[in-house]
Amino acid sequence: MKIFCVILCLFLLVPGMHGSDGGVEGLLEILLHNGTITREQYDQIARQTHKDSSPPADVKITTDGGLQASTYDGRFAFNLGGVFASDTVLYREDKNPLGSGTEIRSARVILGGVLYSDWEFDYSMEFSDAAVEIKDAFLNYRGFSHIDLQLGHFKPFFSLEQIGSRKHTTFMERGLPNALTHDRKIGIGATFRERFWTASAGFFGENYGMIAGNEGDEGWTTTGRFIVTPVQAAGRLWHFGASIAYQRFGDDKEWRIRSRPESHLTGTRYLHTGRMRNARDMLGYGIESAVILGPFSIQGEYLRTSLNMEGGNETPSFHGAYIFGSWLITGESRNYRTERGVFGRVRPDRSYGAFELAVRYSFLDLNSPPSVAGGREDNITIAFNWYLNRNIRLMTNVILVDNDEYATGNGKLHANDNPGIFQARFQIAF
Amino acid sequence: MKIFCVILCLFLLVPGMHGSDGGVEGLLEILLHNGTITREQYDQIARQTHKDSSPPADVKITTDGGLQASTYDGRFAFNLGGVFASDTVLYREDKNPLGSGTEIRSARVILGGVLYSDWEFDYSMEFSDAAVEIKDAFLNYRGFSHIDLQLGHFKPFFSLEQIGSRKHTTFMERGLPNALTHDRKIGIGATFRERFWTASAGFFGENYGMIAGNEGDEGWTTTGRFIVTPVQAAGRLWHFGASIAYQRFGDDKEWRIRSRPESHLTGTRYLHTGRMRNARDMLGYGIESAVILGPFSIQGEYLRTSLNMEGGNETPSFHGAYIFGSWLITGESRNYRTERGVFGRVRPDRSYGAFELAVRYSFLDLNSPPSVAGGREDNITIAFNWYLNRNIRLMTNVILVDNDEYATGNGKLHANDNPGIFQARFQIAF
Amino acid sequence: MKIFCVILCLFLLVPGMHGSDGGVEGLLEILLHNGTITREQYDQIARQTHKDSSPPADVKITTDGGLQASTYDGRFAFNLGGVFASDTVLYREDKNPLGSGTEIRSARVILGGVLYSDWEFDYSMEFSDAAVEIKDAFLNYRGFSHIDLQLGHFKPFFSLEQIGSRKHTTFMERGLPNALTHDRKIGIGATFRERFWTASAGFFGENYGMIAGNEGDEGWTTTGRFIVTPVQAAGRLWHFGASIAYQRFGDDKEWRIRSRPESHLTGTRYLHTGRMRNARDMLGYGIESAVILGPFSIQGEYLRTSLNMEGGNETPSFHGAYIFGSWLITGESRNYRTERGVFGRVRPDRSYGAFELAVRYSFLDLNSPPSVAGGREDNITIAFNWYLNRNIRLMTNVILVDNDEYATGNGKLHANDNPGIFQARFQIAF
Repeated sequence: MKIFCVILCLFLLVPGMHGSDGGVEGLLEILLHNGTITREQYDQIARQTHKDSSPPADVKITTDGGLQASTYDGRFAFNLGGVFASDTVLYREDKNPLGSGTEIRSARVILGGVLYSDWEFDYSMEFSDAAVEIKDAFLNYRGFSHIDLQLGHFKPFFSLEQIGSRKHTTFMERGLPNALTHDRKIGIGATFRERFWTASAGFFGENYGMIAGNEGDEGWTTTGRFIVTPVQAAGRLWHFGASIAYQRFGDDKEWRIRSRPESHLTGTRYLHTGRMRNARDMLGYGIESAVILGPFSIQGEYLRTSLNMEGGNETPSFHGAYIFGSWLITGESRNYRTERGVFGRVRPDRSYGAFELAVRYSFLDLNSPPSVAGGREDNITIAFNWYLNRNIRLMTNVILVDNDEYATGNGKLHANDNPGIFQARFQIAF
Repeated sequence: MKIFCVILCLFLLVPGMHGSDGGVEGLLEILLHNGTITREQYDQIARQTHKDSSPPADVKITTDGGLQASTYDGRFAFNLGGVFASDTVLYREDKNPLGSGTEIRSARVILGGVLYSDWEFDYSMEFSDAAVEIKDAFLNYRGFSHIDLQLGHFKPFFSLEQIGSRKHTTFMERGLPNALTHDRKIGIGATFRERFWTASAGFFGENYGMIAGNEGDEGWTTTGRFIVTPVQAAGRLWHFGASIAYQRFGDDKEWRIRSRPESHLTGTRYLHTGRMRNARDMLGYGIESAVILGPFSIQGEYLRTSLNMEGGNETPSFHGAYIFGSWLITGESRNYRTERGVFGRVRPDRSYGAFELAVRYSFLDLNSPPSVAGGREDNITIAFNWYLNRNIRLMTNVILVDNDEYATGNGKLHANDNPGIFQARFQIAF
Repeated sequence: MKIFCVILCLFLLVPGMHGSDGGVEGLLEILLHNGTITREQYDQIARQTHKDSSPPADVKITTDGGLQASTYDGRFAFNLGGVFASDTVLYREDKNPLGSGTEIRSARVILGGVLYSDWEFDYSMEFSDAAVEIKDAFLNYRGFSHIDLQLGHFKPFFSLEQIGSRKHTTFMERGLPNALTHDRKIGIGATFRERFWTASAGFFGENYGMIAGNEGDEGWTTTGRFIVTPVQAAGRLWHFGASIAYQRFGDDKEWRIRSRPESHLTGTRYLHTGRMRNARDMLGYGIESAVILGPFSIQGEYLRTSLNMEGGNETPSFHGAYIFGSWLITGESRNYRTERGVFGRVRPDRSYGAFELAVRYSFLDLNSPPSVAGGREDNITIAFNWYLNRNIRLMTNVILVDNDEYATGNGKLHANDNPGIFQARFQIAF
């Protein structure tokens, strides 16, 4: 009877084995060694084990509303998440109509995973504009010790705020100078990481949406970013960085910069350079800094871009900057993600969530006399955010907009428009 | 040996513990208490348990073709489902061409979940028209005892058939008066539930697809629905309800109602009010009733909508109704979902599925003399449905259409058209 | 104590039961029969089993970067996968501009599953062109022993290369004659399988994207495919097949064939019949063959299509063919999937992956004198593929294009254009 009981027990080991990382598996060996079970019985159970077990106990599943699966050995993983954000916006119009109302600001589905330990992939799609926009779609090889390699469709390494995810920004929209950064493109990139600094560089084609109906050759872009983080600890950060980007235009040679007033619902873009033909290439750079001191943080960037025109000796140049301070009233700290050098999700400590108060000043100057009068805008934004939990947040922004005499949306708007904006967002993100 | 066997057994408890809701966990305590195992052994096993188990045994996974995951404590859940429906339609044309053929009627992906116990979210996208249409995208807070709060993009509380899911309708398309209801919008809502009645009210912005190229302010809508269900038991239901909706138009002040003949493949819409400019606001109401008696059920609604025009003293008014009877030949009952006051999925009892026979009469009258002649249509539909199992169904509809002399698709069609329609659907839904 | 230990063990059976396919369940019966446990104890455990187990232990989860879930009894399954492919293309232009650059070639999400054992479904969506294209969306009934039934939106049975998935093709694009095959349509189909042969036939409506703005009746298509595989073993295959397709055009009576030069980035289609009006019906056939000998394989097809015009006595006819040889340098064999008669995924044996070298000759002749001069193109392609693992591959193609004097893209291009193409792809697929 005793031996029967033991064998029975061993049968039961089968589904549990993988969970306990071989510890129980060793037991079988010991029992065989001690003579408690015979070789025949051992083999029988081993066969049984093999037949039954392979995948199920291997995979760990978690859910936080999204879904994560990973094998215990860490070789494979899968996750499924998403973002949904809806905005309500009220414009206090001044000289131009802006159009108060509601909109779905983001509706994103995110897939990711790990393959054979060293290959990570990210894939996300944005559905909010009735069409599909492919966002991240890249492979990250992390098999080397200090270097990551990226391949696919991803954001060129340029600008702290641009590289970070929209779902974690402190304000509802990125600052005005974001118009001088670069969208995701198909390319390759490498990131080299040491303890106190990180250097990234990449080479990219053109934006993927720009192919149709054009048989001219496309352009290309190369960017680099270097960051130093002398202080990184719980609730403490000093981050300094610089980015550079060189873009060679394709055969269409056409380019423009334009910007909404840090509010997405309206289609009105006060700042607009107009279409610039005969653009040959463009050189841009940016400097960035962020400091975290417990619940307080300061973050700022300055960006400048210069164009070279074909057959011309003029070099139009545009620039902008933002700086903001944030106070997490409930005492949390903003979450810096070292591996990519960007800010991540705020994680509330309390059951009722976290509160944040923030103020931003930003400007973008698209005037480059004598030839380009794209306008200049100076904005002040006051933000109050309630992070209900890790996944849900409510945001409110009050924006005071100050446009100059050239900010006419390329001649279509009244100049010197100084509207006010109140906007609120409900966001859920996994 | 005995004690060894016991310890071995206890080791095995580890993966099983979470499955048995603490029942087995109690055993460990008892064994310790009885002195069968020592405190040391207890601790060893407890540590082992802790190390191995945290996430995997916590999450319960099920699949019915879709996927559901939930933590055992019920705090988090995730599910992934979808709908696919393809139609084949044959028109017996009378005076106007309708265009027989096939189409993908629905291709939907559905994500949902629970966060921190009290927050439910629903997110679904429709892909059948080459573009993306975001359907449900809202958060439901159920942390209060009698009240649910909704926030996001969802259907305004108005009309029994409209609020219920298209994948569970008895007929292939909703009845003609559905043209008088309201699409999903961004808003907030509350539902108050008592044993025999439910009251819902919400405040909404404009449809999300209506933003582009328009800097006028958007409109808003507020709706309410009240239902009484004096009888609710297995296979028995008395449901009575009333809805009201007030819509204030935005700066575009433009509106129209139009309707296909309860068949989606054709683009022909006999009923069409034409574009009504200077519309200021709109008041609509509806009454609804449904009775289930075992395999038999009757359901009906009457809807009416009145417009107020700016600067005019005319008040165009439109109305419609449907009533249908359904007989589940194989004896099942239609499935009423109390929490939302709508009908759900038919669940066949037999291996070969369930059969349903149903007949509907419906009309929609868009004639409002003297100014609006949108036409009136009276339809009779005979439906035969085969529910192969919970997820798959085949539907057939024969529709006899009777249009009046004003049903000209706003002047583009021959009047008095009385075509016949045969349509069949294959649908799979999770 | 002994009996206690047994009972304890039996408790533990609960979570293991489903894993061992009833083998352990039988044990319970035996123990009862032997009198080792009482009926009371048996019942207690049985109840416990019932309460605890239903979903969690039932479902097996695996991940290879995608996600698979299936119940242990095999009655239900779910899987989620995807494809992402990005291309970089350099054209050595000859007479016409082609437009070098990058593009996202494929961004697909794939859902599939099993319902009630006998019903399989497949659902996939392509997102790479900003719009949504529904690909597979069908149900496969496999409840009969030799026959599968298909219902929904799927590829008509016609041509070996066309029916196989794009994610497993040896070359970056299918061969030129693929322009003579049929896209997915809504329909029904049956496949009859014997040991050495397989016969398929189906009846279909029109392509789902062709509905809008057209109230004429749609057309229909019927196709059949017959394949013989006298040799099928590990690393050995002889495959012969023939397909036939008859297409009846709808009321629009319009048709055209056109083809890119086996490179997708460019919009240039040298071969183009122009729009043929008054097309009544079309008859096509194809023959196909493939042989695998260890790491070597040869595959080829010949396709021909003839049109009947309404009121005309002319019968334009078009044809094309390809043949290619492939050598898997690292020794693997191409993977033939018997159940559908197509090629599947290459599975590398080594940690550094698998290498493949392949050469293809293909042509498509759309000249049908006297009335149609669509051009003829002859291409030679050299391919080198690196399969890094089961899911990731890098592909390179060099294509030498030879167009004849009629290959003018329906009059829009310079004739006799002989460009060269270099293209590379990065693909990840689950």
